[in-house]
Amino acid sequence: MGISISLVDRPIARPSLLFPLDGSSGAVVEFFGVVRGREAGKAIAALDYEAYRAMARKELERIAAETARREGCHDLVLIHRVGIVPVGEPSLYLRVAAERRGAAFRIAEELIQKLKADVPIWKAPVPSRLPAASPPGERR
Amino acid sequence: MGISISLVDRPIARPSLLFPLDGSSGAVVEFFGVVRGREAGKAIAALDYEAYRAMARKELERIAAETARREGCHDLVLIHRVGIVPVGEPSLYLRVAAERRGAAFRIAEELIQKLKADVPIWKAPVPSRLPAASPPGERR
Repeated sequence: MGISISLVDRPIARPSLLFPLDGSSGAVVEFFGVVRGREAGKAIAALDYEAYRAMARKELERIAAETARREGCHDLVLIHRVGIVPVGEPSLYLRVAAERRGAAFRIAEELIQKLKADVPIWKAPVPSRLPAASPPGERR
Repeated sequence: MGISISLVDRPIARPSLLFPLDGSSGAVVEFFGVVRGREAGKAIAALDYEAYRAMARKELERIAAETARREGCHDLVLIHRVGIVPVGEPSLYLRVAAERRGAAFRIAEELIQKLKADVPIWKAPVPSRLPAASPPGERR
């Protein structure tokens, strides 16, 4: 069982996934968490992710090991981008290979939930620099 | 909202996924269903997928449209390989982009369940060509 955890401050490059696999894994689930263009109803340009890197990595390793142990997980790769992540770009990549489909999906979802709950990474919206539309009363 | 459905009789090539996305999708889930080395307890070399192609494609399009309509799905790509698929190679690829993570996972899982239940694609094991181990009594 392999676990790979990375924090990066550049665009996430999807790790290669080479077939054939070894015949033990029946399911591979990959997930990208992507920055959306609106946060709390307001247009944004990016999210700025701040992390206590050493602690974040330690927590990510802990929850990955804990989650992966619970079910038939064969391979787990997690990459979290920190710093400014523009709209439309991924801040999180996750890959889980497992014997069975159900386990692969459960491990992926559970890991993301734990990550959001427990890992010291915070995000702050970077406002859009596009000029706001003038209110109707000021237009002619 | 885009839906793309393919049946192919060659190795599945993962469709390109280019960032940045347009700011509406917060989650992309990808799934590979992979042939495992054992089927019903016996070593196999491959699975042979047989399909009524026209009907399978129609059913895939129907369940994809039905599933994608139910939640905030922005993009759906499904590729099913037919014919002989060797151990370790994917027979199914699915990608779902949606506004939210929960919806993306639910759509992906539901679509695979419906596919297995409703789509006229059958699989037959291709026995492993490795020589079976001789029973202990016949060895010297």
